[in-house]
Amino acid sequence: MTTPITPQHPVEPWAVRETGIDLDKLAQNESIFAVGNGHIGMRGNLDEGDPSEIAGTYLNGVHESRLLPYAENAFGNPEAGETVLNVTDGKLLRLMVGDELFDVRHGELLEHERVLDFREGVLKRNAVWRSPAGPTVRVSSTRLVSFAQRGTAAVLYEVQAVSEDVRIVVQSELVANEDGYDDVAIPAEDDPRKAAMLVDALVAEEQFEHGDTVLLIHRTRRSKIRMAAAMAHAVDGPDGMEIDTDVVSDVGRVTIAADIPKGQTLRVLKFIAYGWSAHRSLPSVRAQVLGSLAEARHTGWHGLCEAQKDYLDQFWANADVEIDGDPELQQAVRFALFHCLQAGARGERRAIAAKGLTGSGYDGHAFWDTETYVLPLLTYTAPQAAADALGWRFDCLEAAYERAHQLGLEGAAFPWRTITGRECSGYWPAGTAGFHINADIADSVLRLQKAVDDEDWDRNIGLPLLVGTARLWDSLGHFDLKGHYRISGVTGPDEYSALVDDNVYTNLMAARNLIGAAEAVDRFPVEAAGLGVSADEQEKWRVSAAAIYVPFDDVLGVHQQADGFTHHAVWDFENTPPEHYPLLLHAPYFDLYRKQVVKQADLVFALYCCGEHFEPEQKAKDFAYYESITVRDSSLSAAVQSIVAAETGHLDLAYTYMCETARVDLDDLAGNTKDGLHMASLAGGWLALVAGFGGFRDQGLVPSFAPRLPAAISRLRFRLTIRGSLLVVTIGGGEVEYKVQTGPTLAIVHEGETIELSRGAAVSRPLVPPPVHEPPTHPVGREPGVYHRRLDGRL
Amino acid sequence: MTTPITPQHPVEPWAVRETGIDLDKLAQNESIFAVGNGHIGMRGNLDEGDPSEIAGTYLNGVHESRLLPYAENAFGNPEAGETVLNVTDGKLLRLMVGDELFDVRHGELLEHERVLDFREGVLKRNAVWRSPAGPTVRVSSTRLVSFAQRGTAAVLYEVQAVSEDVRIVVQSELVANEDGYDDVAIPAEDDPRKAAMLVDALVAEEQFEHGDTVLLIHRTRRSKIRMAAAMAHAVDGPDGMEIDTDVVSDVGRVTIAADIPKGQTLRVLKFIAYGWSAHRSLPSVRAQVLGSLAEARHTGWHGLCEAQKDYLDQFWANADVEIDGDPELQQAVRFALFHCLQAGARGERRAIAAKGLTGSGYDGHAFWDTETYVLPLLTYTAPQAAADALGWRFDCLEAAYERAHQLGLEGAAFPWRTITGRECSGYWPAGTAGFHINADIADSVLRLQKAVDDEDWDRNIGLPLLVGTARLWDSLGHFDLKGHYRISGVTGPDEYSALVDDNVYTNLMAARNLIGAAEAVDRFPVEAAGLGVSADEQEKWRVSAAAIYVPFDDVLGVHQQADGFTHHAVWDFENTPPEHYPLLLHAPYFDLYRKQVVKQADLVFALYCCGEHFEPEQKAKDFAYYESITVRDSSLSAAVQSIVAAETGHLDLAYTYMCETARVDLDDLAGNTKDGLHMASLAGGWLALVAGFGGFRDQGLVPSFAPRLPAAISRLRFRLTIRGSLLVVTIGGGEVEYKVQTGPTLAIVHEGETIELSRGAAVSRPLVPPPVHEPPTHPVGREPGVYHRRLDGRL
Repeated sequence: MTTPITPQHPVEPWAVRETGIDLDKLAQNESIFAVGNGHIGMRGNLDEGDPSEIAGTYLNGVHESRLLPYAENAFGNPEAGETVLNVTDGKLLRLMVGDELFDVRHGELLEHERVLDFREGVLKRNAVWRSPAGPTVRVSSTRLVSFAQRGTAAVLYEVQAVSEDVRIVVQSELVANEDGYDDVAIPAEDDPRKAAMLVDALVAEEQFEHGDTVLLIHRTRRSKIRMAAAMAHAVDGPDGMEIDTDVVSDVGRVTIAADIPKGQTLRVLKFIAYGWSAHRSLPSVRAQVLGSLAEARHTGWHGLCEAQKDYLDQFWANADVEIDGDPELQQAVRFALFHCLQAGARGERRAIAAKGLTGSGYDGHAFWDTETYVLPLLTYTAPQAAADALGWRFDCLEAAYERAHQLGLEGAAFPWRTITGRECSGYWPAGTAGFHINADIADSVLRLQKAVDDEDWDRNIGLPLLVGTARLWDSLGHFDLKGHYRISGVTGPDEYSALVDDNVYTNLMAARNLIGAAEAVDRFPVEAAGLGVSADEQEKWRVSAAAIYVPFDDVLGVHQQADGFTHHAVWDFENTPPEHYPLLLHAPYFDLYRKQVVKQADLVFALYCCGEHFEPEQKAKDFAYYESITVRDSSLSAAVQSIVAAETGHLDLAYTYMCETARVDLDDLAGNTKDGLHMASLAGGWLALVAGFGGFRDQGLVPSFAPRLPAAISRLRFRLTIRGSLLVVTIGGGEVEYKVQTGPTLAIVHEGETIELSRGAAVSRPLVPPPVHEPPTHPVGREPGVYHRRLDGRL
Repeated sequence: MTTPITPQHPVEPWAVRETGIDLDKLAQNESIFAVGNGHIGMRGNLDEGDPSEIAGTYLNGVHESRLLPYAENAFGNPEAGETVLNVTDGKLLRLMVGDELFDVRHGELLEHERVLDFREGVLKRNAVWRSPAGPTVRVSSTRLVSFAQRGTAAVLYEVQAVSEDVRIVVQSELVANEDGYDDVAIPAEDDPRKAAMLVDALVAEEQFEHGDTVLLIHRTRRSKIRMAAAMAHAVDGPDGMEIDTDVVSDVGRVTIAADIPKGQTLRVLKFIAYGWSAHRSLPSVRAQVLGSLAEARHTGWHGLCEAQKDYLDQFWANADVEIDGDPELQQAVRFALFHCLQAGARGERRAIAAKGLTGSGYDGHAFWDTETYVLPLLTYTAPQAAADALGWRFDCLEAAYERAHQLGLEGAAFPWRTITGRECSGYWPAGTAGFHINADIADSVLRLQKAVDDEDWDRNIGLPLLVGTARLWDSLGHFDLKGHYRISGVTGPDEYSALVDDNVYTNLMAARNLIGAAEAVDRFPVEAAGLGVSADEQEKWRVSAAAIYVPFDDVLGVHQQADGFTHHAVWDFENTPPEHYPLLLHAPYFDLYRKQVVKQADLVFALYCCGEHFEPEQKAKDFAYYESITVRDSSLSAAVQSIVAAETGHLDLAYTYMCETARVDLDDLAGNTKDGLHMASLAGGWLALVAGFGGFRDQGLVPSFAPRLPAAISRLRFRLTIRGSLLVVTIGGGEVEYKVQTGPTLAIVHEGETIELSRGAAVSRPLVPPPVHEPPTHPVGREPGVYHRRLDGRL
């Protein structure tokens, strides 16, 4: 059933490579070849700036504010939105060869290759270009955003005279207020997913030049963030080379003019440093950036590269997933791991956005995606990054308490979409009403607690987050006349429903949140008392959780995604033409909300992450029912469908879904990779492998596994760091091997059997055959494997 | 329990009068003293223009378009809104006395009185003013918008020299692009009810002057409506008087300079004519307006006044309501009847807006209010106006079919709010989702069919409206697995709920719509076939209507406003301070929607207008339940609560609610009378008298009555025109008298007994004692009779 897609990039295990250059895919590759460290992100724009589709350099947290407009105002609507800014661009290195500006669209491009190497953590480029005027040069660049030195990036840029002696000018620039979109003058109103464009958002505060060093300090116009960018250079070139430096408010430039004899090379090493603050003084921000720059110079190019390699070696040792039988999937899962690391490694208490720092899609906002998809991956592969990301939520607690208060609620109400922690959703039924994000954050806290077991973190970060969110649920829910605990009028994960009563996912996750908070209070009674938690409050959480209502349709014998859901009309899939997907671009919310049509796993999500509440046979029945009405119009869906398909024995289906989620960006399956990578979908590929085929579940006290493999994969090995132990799980040849490679003894559950794994000793078990069920049916035109463009359409 | 309010205006039976002038109530009185005929509306601004709060002259249908902004776009959101325009102001007559401009804020106002006379249909003003420079003048004016000549208004303006000889200049003006709000530079973003202000919306096309005649033609900037205003004068003054005329693009002026000897009077008669078209040529519009002006001159002042009186004599003969025992209520109900007539008399296939033509509140839009509140009044008192208003809906059918198609539905989807028939709601959960408006329109059609019995109208207007709306319900509803016909995801009348399943009001009204359409098809099979109605389609309507689902709560023993409604938490009324009403200004929709709190009668509305579906005991039980959670934050609510209170035997409660609805504007109970009168609430006062105390029901084939009176009213007489018969119903002294005063024999039902009433013969029956039930309880702070400001807060 799968429509084969020829990969755009050669299939290889440890890199993504572009050979030649396809201008139609320029924007997509700008996202794919992005480099970053969670603090700085640089899109894969060409060194010379032109051509580019979306020029992007991002600093995690640097954003501009803008008023959110409403046709009709209402109490509680957020007034201001936040949009990630394309900050001062430091990666620019423009090249003049003779009288011609180097431009891949002109002259003759004899060679062009770019490689993003997952182990070296650099973007390498190699081009051979014959200028329209005749001379041929080789241009090589290596771009790096340092994992080791958070505020530092660097580019090694080399130009070799190939055919003859050439006059060369390299202009290394810092440019603020670059155009956001080359081809779009105003925000595209017809596609709600494009980031609002902000023109001239950076107001110049200070310029500084000294030798080959330039510093630009700007302040954002409305959000009043002070941001500094600086560059310094080390140039190695022929005698007679001249270096000149100039700066105006939005442009700093170091110009290197040299006559390069044939065969020789001009080598420009550019160090770039960034810093920002919403509070600190100009001298302080200036000092920080010049300090980073000095440190980068001191470390030097080789030092930066070595540290980068060391960092990644360590990461891959803990995180690598090996797949035999499907090289495309192998590449995809490493691509996913690498980009998730780039999104979160050095975020250090800033958000991990839906697009990471690879593009301005969704305005650079973070959603529940982070906690639900990206943090599970980071929790088991780079736990410090996950702890930091939740530290950011902790830092937003005050704003969340304020938001809850504004909404007339108790506790903390985290924003549906945000950069700074303030609610930025301009459509509340699919924003503010998505309260499940609070349970998702709590769930991430509980996961990290169990996986890392850091008592300080649990006490100082985990407890306040659990208490704040539990209090929210306590004020959101109520007991009905029959004693059920109900949560009315909220929006669950499925964005083709809204404002529903008793969404199963939300209710069960809320119950987990309440219980998790009650247990945390038991562990930290003193600190809990400091937060004002009384024994009564704690008891009420437990009672509410125990009485949580889970709606069920007796006639159909399936759970209802929400109360009354199965009484709605089923969407008329037969008469929906393929070009009408994603439906939200062709049908009003009104009609989507009132019908049985599911954008993304919701009840099926509950089957996975709250699986303890469902019997296996019921899971199979529920999964089959919801498969028949799920259209996967969100890129968040396939991963979860893959996991539950694997659990219910539909291994080939699970495999198909997994490919879809893992290759979403490499194959541009959603059609909008240009706006940034789909971090959640990428992380979902990892989840689908580990939780789907690995059968890994972490909701219990002890991690459990129920491994199985689809026909397409002969061997699967993945690594998880759990409480300081590196667990390596290898599935293949009809058996599974569990091994603690480093760290203390670890207890796991395999298919119900508890196994103690001591360091170094491998334990093998035969695979248990999966359950057998009739294959589920799917909406016409939305069958799995029918790769389709523009899957994702969340507003 | 009632907090007494001292009426601002003297209580008198046939007029509303202002003695003195209260600048704090200027805006409120601008609405109250508005004159109009359904085509032209003039706010009660002072002749001299200053001071004014909201200068307003409106032409029914003349509006400007503006883009509706959304923080997040979505398919099906209306792109453009419409806002009523303050058109060229023709009522201006500025006066200079000596060197001083007449201004009530300066000098000394020795007398000032304004009277709006319900029988003469004119606004009279009488002022005696001593200028700061000494001279005293008497200024008298009479303003009239002609019922008889649709495009014509006139002002008789007289200035008498009282204390001495005075130099007088009268400047009679036509002014386009007047400031909308004197004190507001930009739209007040914190109050969604204020009309979006539009500056310089009128673009000058032509100016013309000839003697004392001036013509200004403008075109609206975006909606491209051509609009002409003209004035002509007849001046009677002393010898030596000079008259000068000048005109520029936005101002036409006739200046009369005269020296008035003490005791003598300058008399300026100003004729004003208006015309507009979205399609016709400039010469055509010019000719129309100059023609109206010529006809007005030809008719003359006395002719216009006599025709006005004749028109109103006829109206009151058919429409008057007499109340003994409560003079305030007597005044209020005549005020209501008069303003409803002014809103609809000469609308002639234009909308009757929520504010009539008395202000720009709600952007000048028409809502379901028109069909549900105003048209019942007009149907039985001025049936041609009701037929015309539904004729406007007929003219909008094409747009309604288009809107349905855009939404993926069949049939006609009428807009929630509009001027031209296009959807202008920028918040779809409380706009587009309010599909019940379609059943409300159909219900008005069915009412008019029975009340007027005009076969041509039924065939040409009624049938297409019934078929279009029935088709909508057919595509909105579906059968569930148990065979119930359900309508999911719509918003009922109560705006503190939204996107609910099986709203009882909507479902029952939809069923009536379906049955009414099926019956109309039986009557007009040929025309129905012409509309493509098949026997299958007709049968499906009947089957669906018969299976309509009406949710009921077995535990509570009451109907659910919508499926699941009674499972929601009850709003915490105890902890809601009085200043938090209306709730929508202090709580997010999110919280309102998910709780049991009712803004306005909804299930209780169904008890009234679909009463045939409920047993009397159930009505009493349902009423009591919903009374306890209804906050009356909408001015639409009290009338319906009054009616059902009367039916369930709570006569004093019914009376209290009736006073609230009838005096909403005279006592400014909603605090926003300044933005225009609440036509629906005013009409609701009439409905509460006739349907409440008269017990009048018109859902059956024969009109029925179940009269009863509260203690405060000793005698109630009302008049209804039904199928050409003028029925006079008099309740008092323990009995009711039915009499057909003119027209053919009429069958009615009194308390279950059918009575044939032949012309002239009065039939009396003793009143049947009402049922006795425990008094219902009410939310704390929202008890009936606690008059409160800012009741109304619909977005």
